[in-house]
Amino acid sequence: MKIEAVDFFYLAMPVITTEADGSQDALLVRVTASGGHVGWGECEASPLVSIAAFVTPRSHGVCRPVGDSVLGQTLDTPADIARLSALVEYQSMDLLQAPHTWSGVEMALWDLLGRARGEPVWRLLGYARSEPKLPYASVLFGDNPQETLERARTSRREGFTAGKFGWGPIGRKSARDDADHFQAAREGLGPDGILLVDVGQIFGEDVEAAAARLPALEAAGALWLEEPFGANAYDAYGALAARSPQVKLAGGEGAHHPAMARHLIDHGRVGFIQIDCGRIGGIGPAKAVADHAARRGVTFVNHTFTSHLALSASLQPFAGLADHRICEFPAKPKALARDLTRNHLARDAAGRLAAPDAPGLGLEPDPAAIRRYGVDVEIKVGGRLLFQSPRHI
Amino acid sequence: MKIEAVDFFYLAMPVITTEADGSQDALLVRVTASGGHVGWGECEASPLVSIAAFVTPRSHGVCRPVGDSVLGQTLDTPADIARLSALVEYQSMDLLQAPHTWSGVEMALWDLLGRARGEPVWRLLGYARSEPKLPYASVLFGDNPQETLERARTSRREGFTAGKFGWGPIGRKSARDDADHFQAAREGLGPDGILLVDVGQIFGEDVEAAAARLPALEAAGALWLEEPFGANAYDAYGALAARSPQVKLAGGEGAHHPAMARHLIDHGRVGFIQIDCGRIGGIGPAKAVADHAARRGVTFVNHTFTSHLALSASLQPFAGLADHRICEFPAKPKALARDLTRNHLARDAAGRLAAPDAPGLGLEPDPAAIRRYGVDVEIKVGGRLLFQSPRHI
Repeated sequence: MKIEAVDFFYLAMPVITTEADGSQDALLVRVTASGGHVGWGECEASPLVSIAAFVTPRSHGVCRPVGDSVLGQTLDTPADIARLSALVEYQSMDLLQAPHTWSGVEMALWDLLGRARGEPVWRLLGYARSEPKLPYASVLFGDNPQETLERARTSRREGFTAGKFGWGPIGRKSARDDADHFQAAREGLGPDGILLVDVGQIFGEDVEAAAARLPALEAAGALWLEEPFGANAYDAYGALAARSPQVKLAGGEGAHHPAMARHLIDHGRVGFIQIDCGRIGGIGPAKAVADHAARRGVTFVNHTFTSHLALSASLQPFAGLADHRICEFPAKPKALARDLTRNHLARDAAGRLAAPDAPGLGLEPDPAAIRRYGVDVEIKVGGRLLFQSPRHI
Repeated sequence: MKIEAVDFFYLAMPVITTEADGSQDALLVRVTASGGHVGWGECEASPLVSIAAFVTPRSHGVCRPVGDSVLGQTLDTPADIARLSALVEYQSMDLLQAPHTWSGVEMALWDLLGRARGEPVWRLLGYARSEPKLPYASVLFGDNPQETLERARTSRREGFTAGKFGWGPIGRKSARDDADHFQAAREGLGPDGILLVDVGQIFGEDVEAAAARLPALEAAGALWLEEPFGANAYDAYGALAARSPQVKLAGGEGAHHPAMARHLIDHGRVGFIQIDCGRIGGIGPAKAVADHAARRGVTFVNHTFTSHLALSASLQPFAGLADHRICEFPAKPKALARDLTRNHLARDAAGRLAAPDAPGLGLEPDPAAIRRYGVDVEIKVGGRLLFQSPRHI
């Protein structure tokens, strides 16, 4: 097959708040190859900037638009996808946004290849089975402990025995204030629930400030503390990990190259490595991280806060790893993220979730939703129209 | 002062080749503050994508446009610039292109503050003097050894006793072919010249392939081997450094966060850390890297392949470090990079170069050049005009 077209669809809610809620907009990618083959992917990234990185004029030999490495290329095997990943990495070396753009395209290439062969992506990755995972409901902390308690109770009522609470007021007031939220989350989840805490890089590189929260996290029985520090702060991660034998560290969603995830494992000593296929360069690089994690005895977990298309993509890299058994499930996405696909991943009777046994990623984008939430983009450079949102879906 | 406007000027040569020559286009930034104060900076980055990162609609609380953290802010002291850097880092956490955009803006804020106070930026950074540096002529390898020889002779004839040769065919054929280029460069520079070799990430993470070039680099008396690996490949750097006691490793131009440069020093064991102020987030983060390098006994060097505005900016962070005495000098830039400023940094009688003793960065952009090389950009999202190139300079 030959890659003939890559189309981008920018979708957004009517109002975008300042919450740390990544489901408020989306950049959907459609790849069309010869023979009428189609695949879909999703970038977890600023839509306008990611589109610009695909169409921008060349700056020099290794600051080329992502499109230069994709359009017209051959796609017949997983090795072709790896070849294109290497090409993008080299030819767009100095274009910082490139991995975020490429992530959605790469995902669509896997979807297309899987659909063309009638095989799920996880089988193309070499897995024999799609192992069911225990999904944790991922929600934001409330503005106060009472709200956090209610959100935890809701998650439990909806059948989730594991819950992640993130961002909100944590790290902005005292360690004691944070402790009240951790306890509220534990109370709402129940004594047998799996409690996960995500603080969204709030401590920068300040190991002491993060360490001050450890006793309360231990008291609440949290399994992990997620993203205490910036995406590149491997030394701070390593220092905190050495002081926290009970509560493991988790991180990795900010990785836009598999080497960043490796450093977080090898130098940052995280217990859980969390990869977003919409940022790290797609499914292939995420699989490489899963392999490295398995070798190191670190647990791979998906990072997903958007649609079920992104969810399916992010489950593929560790679908066959039976010992890596929990997965993130965006429990309260905005309507756009829910409406984006016609079908959804459903939990089984035991409440577990698995990458679907269906061709490609197994999800069908809904043209009506694409029209409803679509945002028109037009980019002109030097009088030439470089991008215009597709008129038809 | 209050930051009132940030204007972007996209300049380009009429034809952009696939050479690894970053001087073929430029993104100039002008910041205007209350009281009519103006400062200039330059992003070393894809112009269209970097503009988009400044104006893009918000995706969520930590995927905001860079402009959100800048416009309307107070600017009176260097601490204000550091405060805005931290704000951009947090609020644009999930916008990958943000550091490249912010780099040019940050540079312009230093220029503005220096002009307003009548002080050079290096003095605002705490340095008492601007130490003269030995500039090395930075050129590309020729297509064949004879061309490389001629370029080396030209550099020497133009008074450069130090020369860097980069990219071109190196790493694409055999180690023996590369050896011929290294010897040609040495011959052209003369036996007393300082020979530097830059291979532009050609070996990915392949330590053996890079190590195969070490004997020829030693035989040619190269001082450093630059960028053998990808920007995140700290472990590969460390492994090669352990095998190369004579030829030191150099790298860091790909760093878009000061932590990346720290890792290259601490884990990658480079002997020279090369920072581009147009990528790492500007002058403040580059100064933090210079401080770290000095503590670790590693030599700081600027990375500059564009205009003299960018050159002045990249000299500031280590202007006062007398022991860090060589600097990169773009010896063969395209006309656009030369024409972009009305004045230029000149070498003294001894052939040395220093950050200018003039307010701000000490360079004056040329409005005629901005008009001559200007490329019009227009970005519309949802029917709203988010960016249009300024009509007037």
